[in-house]
This record gives sequence, structure tokens and C-alpha cells, in this order.
Amino acid sequence: MERRKFLKGTALASVGTATALATPALSQGKTQWTAVSAFGKAGLLGQALNEFAKFVDTASGGKLSFKVYHAGELVKPFEAMDAVQSGTAQMGYGAPYYWAGKSDSISFVAAMPFGLTAQEQNAWLYYGGGIDMADKTAYRPLGLKFLPLGNTGNQMGGWYAKEINTVADLNGLKFRMPGLGGEVLSTFGTNVILLPGSEVLPALSSGAIDGTEWIGPAADMGKGLFKVVKNYYYPGWHEPATILDGFIDAKAWDALDEDLKAIVERGAAATNLFILSKFQAINNTALKKLTTEHDVKLRKYSDELVSAIGERAAEVIPNLAGKTADGKELYNHIIGFRQGMTEWSNYSEATFLNARTAANFKQI
Amino acid sequence: MERRKFLKGTALASVGTATALATPALSQGKTQWTAVSAFGKAGLLGQALNEFAKFVDTASGGKLSFKVYHAGELVKPFEAMDAVQSGTAQMGYGAPYYWAGKSDSISFVAAMPFGLTAQEQNAWLYYGGGIDMADKTAYRPLGLKFLPLGNTGNQMGGWYAKEINTVADLNGLKFRMPGLGGEVLSTFGTNVILLPGSEVLPALSSGAIDGTEWIGPAADMGKGLFKVVKNYYYPGWHEPATILDGFIDAKAWDALDEDLKAIVERGAAATNLFILSKFQAINNTALKKLTTEHDVKLRKYSDELVSAIGERAAEVIPNLAGKTADGKELYNHIIGFRQGMTEWSNYSEATFLNARTAANFKQI
Repeated sequence: MERRKFLKGTALASVGTATALATPALSQGKTQWTAVSAFGKAGLLGQALNEFAKFVDTASGGKLSFKVYHAGELVKPFEAMDAVQSGTAQMGYGAPYYWAGKSDSISFVAAMPFGLTAQEQNAWLYYGGGIDMADKTAYRPLGLKFLPLGNTGNQMGGWYAKEINTVADLNGLKFRMPGLGGEVLSTFGTNVILLPGSEVLPALSSGAIDGTEWIGPAADMGKGLFKVVKNYYYPGWHEPATILDGFIDAKAWDALDEDLKAIVERGAAATNLFILSKFQAINNTALKKLTTEHDVKLRKYSDELVSAIGERAAEVIPNLAGKTADGKELYNHIIGFRQGMTEWSNYSEATFLNARTAANFKQI
Repeated sequence: MERRKFLKGTALASVGTATALATPALSQGKTQWTAVSAFGKAGLLGQALNEFAKFVDTASGGKLSFKVYHAGELVKPFEAMDAVQSGTAQMGYGAPYYWAGKSDSISFVAAMPFGLTAQEQNAWLYYGGGIDMADKTAYRPLGLKFLPLGNTGNQMGGWYAKEINTVADLNGLKFRMPGLGGEVLSTFGTNVILLPGSEVLPALSSGAIDGTEWIGPAADMGKGLFKVVKNYYYPGWHEPATILDGFIDAKAWDALDEDLKAIVERGAAATNLFILSKFQAINNTALKKLTTEHDVKLRKYSDELVSAIGERAAEVIPNLAGKTADGKELYNHIIGFRQGMTEWSNYSEATFLNARTAANFKQI
């Protein structure tokens, strides 16, 4: 609730200032869309958005191009969706739970605590009817078309000033965790706080929060969280992997040629894979550096905690989903898919990862 | 060795017949490439290749198009690389270990027993220097440019007429397993046989082989292997995931505009993700059907077997890799990356998959 107020508040405050800046440019059959991102220009996600935009321009022979504004360049990070809905931009980029103030179901698109891994999410999106279901129950009702545009892969559990051993340690904790994971934590008495990326480190430094989850080792190291707190927990039960969302003004999307749609969709799918692959490729080096150079203590959530949180998640999340017909439909769709994926991943990915240690390969 | 003779034999036998059919078509700045596939037209991979070709045509505005020939339409499945090398085609499609007769290092690109998962392979390919390393040590020496063009995801261990409990059961077994897994099995006295896809079921039916691995539940069910043998083992230690390869005549690739290269590369990356996602999405339904409707017995390789095979793999595979400078360089590159990924995946994917059962979500 706090979060929704916060989001709505910031959004309404400043969209108006940007409205005059951008309208779709049309000349000689060429379309230029304004794209606004919730992520900073300098990071991996800013770069990925630039490359996506460049690709669409190239592949469409300039028929569709983008003027890209990263976080803060045209509107504030959490105002990206307002900007698209108001016509200031035609496309936005963020994480679905950033828009929880606009939709009761949209957070389910991002990630579910104890839900799907990145590999499973992509199976759901592209061949499990996930894109259509997300559109039907979350994006189309907001006048938008959903476009998967990245995945963080497995997240870490988060950073804590003190060790967390039992559910009692969650009570009274001031912790930043967006999305459904935060809803679960709050039932243990945690004071769950949502902050935009730029405010996380200052809040941690000032003691306004006792801890935070962010993404994974590479992104977390870049953010400098290790400078303030040293207990780094895994696994990231709250976001086994998080889908990043492109969202396009539905009228602009529907009016697009089929050829341009194909270019945007395939370009986005490649971006999705590239972002996931990059996070995976760089996480371990960062993790090593955090533990060896920055005195970070890598800690596994206790079985007791995981069991208690898991049990609670299975009560809290369906209750949240059941508040609206859209939420219920989306939740049931994801849960149905999760059932099959859990079985298959247990026979394949999980069993293999446990068996892999049997071979100890050496450099030659 | 048997395998290499077999491959070379069939390849030399019939490439000549096709040479006259195809030369790159050039008119008004338009290029048409002939593409030859080792996979059948009807399956998931045939369809994915068609869609890739269609996308490149669309996105390039017809500047680059393909005339696609699936397995057997222009050349036999295992002749696809010969066809590209001889100039009959400009692009081919298959699995890297199909071309083991041409390169001592190329099988390492496909998969390594106890090696990388699909998610890790993509991290290696796109951000771990994998594409460049595969080109340097395997494809460029063959006059080709490598293009990742799909991934099977986690494979199953395979189909056996009899139960396999100890390494003694591997001795004398006639088993189809391509790639490095077969090399490991052969050291246990297994008679390892390579057969093209179309010959696997007949060989199993006639008793020419006692068992076979193929891909995963969905592909295996389509092949009808359950009709002959009922013991279905996991995990697929031999191919934790297998990269499928597009390979392009290096001169044709190098001559391509940068824009067209970008379209081909992003189009291929999307195809890579789509194929992996589709396999993941459909495997569990197939697995259920196999066990409930077709009396298939799902069996886990014993810890004893996994330990023995893993230990042997760690001896055999570096020996094979060390035969050539290219093989050594490629092996060391993959092994170095695997070390970091194993650590990170243990903290993330493996721990999460084991923790996930804490939440038992129900439909609402």
C-alpha cells in the first residue's frame, strides 16, 4: 500500500513537464518512438536498451527508430509507465513490479517468490502462453502491449546489517524488497520499504533501512552495498529470476506493420537472452571479489527460515492474487505452468547440478 | 574413430551430386544463400530454421534471403557441412559433434559431459568469449563462421532395454551416443555407435543397438523410442545441454554488410532462445505421457554410476582435448568458465531449486 501511494505520488507530480517534448515523428513512412527507461544509462540495462534500439533501426532500414531516454533524462525512473500512458513516450522499460501502483496483477509477471527460474520463465513466456496472459491480465487493461526485454537471472537473497537466522529476526527489520517477496516478508513484521535504485545506498548508509535485496553479485557490487553491510544471503527465494518489461502504447503497437512487429519481437527476444547471459557470465567474478577483497560474508538462509517463508508465501500470494479476476487468472496460469516445470527441472537441471561435482576437470 | 570414418564415408559419397544445384543468387544488391540442415523438416528444429530464414529475409528487406533445404532434401543429414565447404550451400545447420570427422575440437562446442547447462553455455557464448573461441579453434580452421542457433536444454540420460546399475552393466552394451559422452562410455567397454536420427528406431527395434540417448522427453517421445525399450534414465550427464550450430562459409560471412551481420546474429540469438524455451515448455507433458500412458520406467542413474563416470570423464576428456593445440585451447577455455559458473550456479540455481519445494502453491 505504501508503495502504491509512493509510486502514484511521484508519477503524478512530474509527468506533465515532459509532455511537450515528444510526439511520434512521422515522415516518408518512417516512425520514431520515444522510449523511456527506469534504468540508468551507464549500467548493463541502459546499454542493452541502446543496442536494442539500434538494432530495430538497422533491421527496419530506419522505418522504426527510437529516441531513448534513460532514467532521469526525460522522466523519473518510476514514471516511465506514466509517460507511455500519457503519450509522452511510445515505449517504456523497467521491471513489472515497478508498476504495482497501476495494477494488482502486474507484479506476478516479474517474479514469484519460490516461482520460476529464468529458463522456466522464458519457456512460459514464449511457449506457455505467458506473453498473451500477461497482456490480457496486466498490460492491455493499462492500454499497453507487453514485450519481455531482459531477465536478471537468479537473484541473491539480499544484504543485511545483522545475521538473520530465524523468523523472529525478520520482525521489525526495515528492509527494501519490491514485489511479492516484500508482501510475504511484511507478514513477519518486517517494515518493507520500496526505494528507487539511486536511493538504496544512501538509505542503507543512514540507517533508514537495515538491509536490502538488489539483484545479484555483479549488479550489487556495482551499487557498492558491501561498503555498508557485510552479510550477503542466498538463495534469492523472493526473485528466483526477474523478467524485465518493455511496454508499448497499445495503439502504436497495433498500428505497426507485421514486419516491424517481427523485428521488434525478435530483437527483444535477443536482448532478453543477452541480458540474462551477461548477468550469468559476470556474477561469479563479482562474488569472488566481494568475499575475498571486501570481507563480505556469504550466508545461506537456514532451512528453518526457508521452510517458514515458503509456507507463508503459499498462503499470502494466492490471497493477493485473488483480489482481482485478472490477478487470479494470471496466478493460476503461472502456478499451473510451475507445477510441470518443477517436475521436469527436478529430473533435469536440479539432478544434474547436484551430480556435476562428480567430475573434477583440470586445466591441461 | 568409427564415427569419423562413418561420417567421412557418407560425406564423400554424395556431395558431388548436389554441387550444380545452388550458387548464391545475386541481383540488385540482393543475396540468396542456400541453407542445408541436418534436421528434418517436420520437427521443432526444421520449423525454427524456417522461421529464422523468414526473419532474416523480412528484417533485411530481402537483401539476404535463404533457400532452405532440410535433411535429405539436398544432401544427407551428415553432409551439411561438406555442402557448405564445397560451395553447394552458404550455410548449414546441425549439432557440432556431427562434424567430429572434420575437427578434433568441434565436439567440445556442442556439450561436455558434466559440463555447462544451457544457461551457462549462453553466458559462455555471448559474454564469456565462447563464440570467438569456437570460431578460432574449430570453425575458422574449416573455412567457416560459427553461429549459435539453438540449444536442446537438459537432455535425458537415455533409453535402455535392461536396467543399468553398475559400471559392469556398461561393458559390452551396444549404445548410440554421439560426442564426448560416447568417448567416455567406450572406456567402460561399451560399443558406442553413431547413427543419424532416422536410423535410431530401426536399429533399436532390430537389436542392432541395446539402447540410445536422444534428446529429452518431448523429442524422444516423438521418435517413438518408448515402443521398443522402457527404461528411461536421468540425469543426462553426457549432455547437460547441447548447443546447435549454424555454420556459414567464412568468405560469404566476411563479405556481408555489418547491418546484415547484425540481423543474422540477433535473429540467430532469438532462435537460440526460442528453441531452448520450446523444449523446456513441452518436456514435462511428454514425460508424464511416457510414464502414465506408455509404461516407461523413469530411473535415476545410481550415485555409484555417476561417480564412476564423472571420475572417468575427468581423465578421458582432457586427454582427447590435448591431442591438438586447438582442442587444448578450447577445453581450457570452457573448463575455466565452468569453474566460475559451477560456483555461482551452486549458490543460485542449485540452492534455489532445492529450496523451492518449501512453497506448495495451489490453484485458486
